[in-house]
Amino acid sequence: MRGLMQDTPLTVDAIFRHVEQHYGDGTIVTNNPGGVTRATYAEWAQRTRKLGGVLDTLGISSDGRVGTFGWNSQRHLELYFAAPCTGRVLHTLNVRLFPEQLTYIANHAEDEVIFVDRTVLPLLWSLIDTMKTVKQVVVMDDGGDNEIPDDARILDYETLLADAEPVEFHVEDEGLAASMCYTSGTTGNPKGVVYSHRSTFLHTMGVMAPNAFGLGIRDVAMPVVPMFHANAWGIAQAAPAAGASLVMPGALMQPEAIAKLIIDEGVTFTAGVPTIWQGVLPHLAGKPHKLRDIGCGGSAVPKALSEAYREQVGIPILQAWGMTETHPVASSGVLPNRYEDADDETKATQRARAGIPFLGVEARIVDADTLEPQPWDDKATGELQVRGPWCAQDYYNPDAGTELTTEDGWMKTGDVAAMDAYGSIRIADRTKDLIKSGGEWISSVDLENAIMSHPAVKEAAVIGIPHPKWDERPLACVVVKEGESVTQEEILEHLKPLVAKWWMPEAVEFIDEVPKTSVGKFSKKDLRTKFAEYALPS
Amino acid sequence: MRGLMQDTPLTVDAIFRHVEQHYGDGTIVTNNPGGVTRATYAEWAQRTRKLGGVLDTLGISSDGRVGTFGWNSQRHLELYFAAPCTGRVLHTLNVRLFPEQLTYIANHAEDEVIFVDRTVLPLLWSLIDTMKTVKQVVVMDDGGDNEIPDDARILDYETLLADAEPVEFHVEDEGLAASMCYTSGTTGNPKGVVYSHRSTFLHTMGVMAPNAFGLGIRDVAMPVVPMFHANAWGIAQAAPAAGASLVMPGALMQPEAIAKLIIDEGVTFTAGVPTIWQGVLPHLAGKPHKLRDIGCGGSAVPKALSEAYREQVGIPILQAWGMTETHPVASSGVLPNRYEDADDETKATQRARAGIPFLGVEARIVDADTLEPQPWDDKATGELQVRGPWCAQDYYNPDAGTELTTEDGWMKTGDVAAMDAYGSIRIADRTKDLIKSGGEWISSVDLENAIMSHPAVKEAAVIGIPHPKWDERPLACVVVKEGESVTQEEILEHLKPLVAKWWMPEAVEFIDEVPKTSVGKFSKKDLRTKFAEYALPS
Ligand SMILES: Nc1ncnc2c1ncn2[C@@H]1O[C@H](COP(=O)(O)O)[C@@H](O)[C@H]1O
Repeated sequence: MRGLMQDTPLTVDAIFRHVEQHYGDGTIVTNNPGGVTRATYAEWAQRTRKLGGVLDTLGISSDGRVGTFGWNSQRHLELYFAAPCTGRVLHTLNVRLFPEQLTYIANHAEDEVIFVDRTVLPLLWSLIDTMKTVKQVVVMDDGGDNEIPDDARILDYETLLADAEPVEFHVEDEGLAASMCYTSGTTGNPKGVVYSHRSTFLHTMGVMAPNAFGLGIRDVAMPVVPMFHANAWGIAQAAPAAGASLVMPGALMQPEAIAKLIIDEGVTFTAGVPTIWQGVLPHLAGKPHKLRDIGCGGSAVPKALSEAYREQVGIPILQAWGMTETHPVASSGVLPNRYEDADDETKATQRARAGIPFLGVEARIVDADTLEPQPWDDKATGELQVRGPWCAQDYYNPDAGTELTTEDGWMKTGDVAAMDAYGSIRIADRTKDLIKSGGEWISSVDLENAIMSHPAVKEAAVIGIPHPKWDERPLACVVVKEGESVTQEEILEHLKPLVAKWWMPEAVEFIDEVPKTSVGKFSKKDLRTKFAEYALPS
Repeated sequence: MRGLMQDTPLTVDAIFRHVEQHYGDGTIVTNNPGGVTRATYAEWAQRTRKLGGVLDTLGISSDGRVGTFGWNSQRHLELYFAAPCTGRVLHTLNVRLFPEQLTYIANHAEDEVIFVDRTVLPLLWSLIDTMKTVKQVVVMDDGGDNEIPDDARILDYETLLADAEPVEFHVEDEGLAASMCYTSGTTGNPKGVVYSHRSTFLHTMGVMAPNAFGLGIRDVAMPVVPMFHANAWGIAQAAPAAGASLVMPGALMQPEAIAKLIIDEGVTFTAGVPTIWQGVLPHLAGKPHKLRDIGCGGSAVPKALSEAYREQVGIPILQAWGMTETHPVASSGVLPNRYEDADDETKATQRARAGIPFLGVEARIVDADTLEPQPWDDKATGELQVRGPWCAQDYYNPDAGTELTTEDGWMKTGDVAAMDAYGSIRIADRTKDLIKSGGEWISSVDLENAIMSHPAVKEAAVIGIPHPKWDERPLACVVVKEGESVTQEEILEHLKPLVAKWWMPEAVEFIDEVPKTSVGKFSKKDLRTKFAEYALPS
């Protein structure tokens, strides 16, 4: 027997219409080098419809990829809706990636146009000839002072908008792609995750729930987590969908600027990686504010950081866990009732967990090879695997051999976790040999190859070491060839032309041999154990 | 281009697993004539899996209808999940319906079994031979003192459960029916609404959101609105799904008992029809409580009632609007930000609106005949029509000529509404000529027919008159045949064997003629205008 309900699809344009119809007086504030700009959702909606018209006029294919390269801003939010609501696919490019990665990604996604903030234009423009499918670059003038090249491919956002007609939005099939996001959070080439309209709608409802970010009409939400990385944790959709006003930090990501926005704009909910909150703390401590929750994730949230916020700002940090492949938010450390009367220490320990998956996400821990389930005793660990309508099934045209999904249909996260009797997740380790620094990924493999290109180096293994500011920083463990010698300085000097400045190992340790697994691979696990107590030079 | 996310279905068993895995220490309290019972969600989950086994053992078809006839209770919640999670269809029978309606509904739905509370057993049992497809009646002993007939068809819930094995739940297709609910809120025979797994999952997320009931892990939720009528407004699914504890009033629906439960059990969220809150007010006024919100709907919520709660209980009432056909909650009167600094009177007027549809529900007002959209100026009225994944498409095997959906795919509500510039709904009237008394429907048409069966009556038209306790009560407007005479007492006497006691008109007014519309139909609208200031005898 079938249900007899309407089969209305779950689409991004349904979210758009909801905002346009009901929350026209909500506001979007953007902080920019050119000054703060303000608009209502009514104005935003009208501009977004016109932007749909621009995409038509530019001749973007009906499901063409619309690239963006910019900070969190009102214009970025216009793109977040105009692209999927006209059937196209929003593709957010991460402004912190390497040039080669950016080229790879734009070509792999086949971006037809890229919308770029003036403050980051030079980086993008220097690569334009390597991006085969990109025909136009639309500059969003955020008040940055970069020169705008005189080139026929370069267009101006506001000029295009001024000339455009608003269009109707109508997506019929919730299974269609709405946006894509590449992750470098795995080894090998960056991998594209393709969110559907359905998954976007459901993730929006998921993060809106009280056990997640709890967004409602009385909120003022500020996503510090970038719209160019992991979908701004869904806040760019969920805040408008809830009628909450939005505050966008724009290019001004300095801790002082962020703290000032929180205070001046009466922000009630914000979210970002630990590094951000580490920096913001001294600027917020003891100040009057309206915050009810500070979401934090992307890396483990240090208990001490959360406690410092509780003591100095008045609210502990709300940990969330997820990844690009989970849209990205899948669980949160909302404190279960049974700890309500616990002491501060116990509460803090509980809050430091990745916590309970949201309704819509199922989690398990298994032996990564045999898929044998591990007990939920908070001791046994296994690979964390997830399942649900906003978990990715496959990457977009992946390299051969990249398997995201297990035989029995669960998504592999590459995180190692324990679960307690109530299925609360505690991230214990990463199987992925990557280092997460300030919310962005460093590939240990790429770093190792660069180090091993030094003639005196026999073997090199790079691991992440916890770091108070950046969460993790790379430590290079180097084995010198017999009869040769090399210093830390020489190795770093060697790396300079080869890797980005923020990838530079924090230190080099010389070791006799890299520990190996039974099959002869570098055992990062053993190395991590060996250096568990390692103190980076500060 | 298609999204590449998992196509995990949205099903009731996904909700069940979520509760079972993560909220095992949440509690369900049931107030019963036999005393208060308590269980954890862990115990409830285990019993629900066993109940699935019972349904197998009883031989219920794989998509058979499982009837229930009972109050809000833990056992009813077991049925709410065990039936859909095993692929069957939960069918809640309204204990306040007429015998003939109950018979009609059980036969129309083809119920195979009915689970019945001992306190309401006699009513059901007296009809058992008229219910053609019902093979078994399972008695849930809630401590009522009704005798249990010695009959082979009668089984005991706890005995069956004790003997059963827990089963696995696994529904693959979100389009399958999960439950059905008949509404007598229209003229003609009761009509069956068939909720799907998908619509149930989405409605659960919808009512959980902060702009709706805002249910989270710290809540203690008490649905006073019956599980046998309009799905307990989704609270029976959303509270467990949020990890909120549940308090069930059982058969003890007296105002004192409800107020006591709210206070004793630390209820933070509750919901029911205006009549309930009218009665509870004196028992709650000035008492200490933990309520954060009192949901109210099913009839217009009088502004005075909401204000009385604000003044005497400390929180105004949260109005919600919806109908059986919308699962049932579709909008709420959560106060928009722009009224934050308004005076109390303005706020109260705003809160008295049906308010903003939830994300997932779209609303419009149109001319019912031409479907011409009406302006959103808060003056123009039109038929309220809605659209979305938890709005019904069709009734279950409806009588010929019953059309729920317009040509262009919107659900007709039969309510007349105005909408303001922000799409906030104000219910103005009902096109359905029904009277809503204490949350339940009285068919004016049926009453009129009964009155007109009196030999001295020429015409009778019944309208609802606002009533401080019951929201509305019927007023009979009677035209006497020429040369005949009849008194109010004689008419009421005549009705006694024909209608339920609570359907009895509050008063009879003798008029010269029933006003007619242009096509010669009774014009209830004109009658309502005529009696707009009518004061019922008290
Ligand atoms: N709360 C958290 N605690 C620990 N690691 C986290 C947390 N949130 C995210 N991560 C890590 O970040 C990865 C996802 O990175 P990304 O795809 O860049 O968002 C996860 O697989 C984890 O390794």
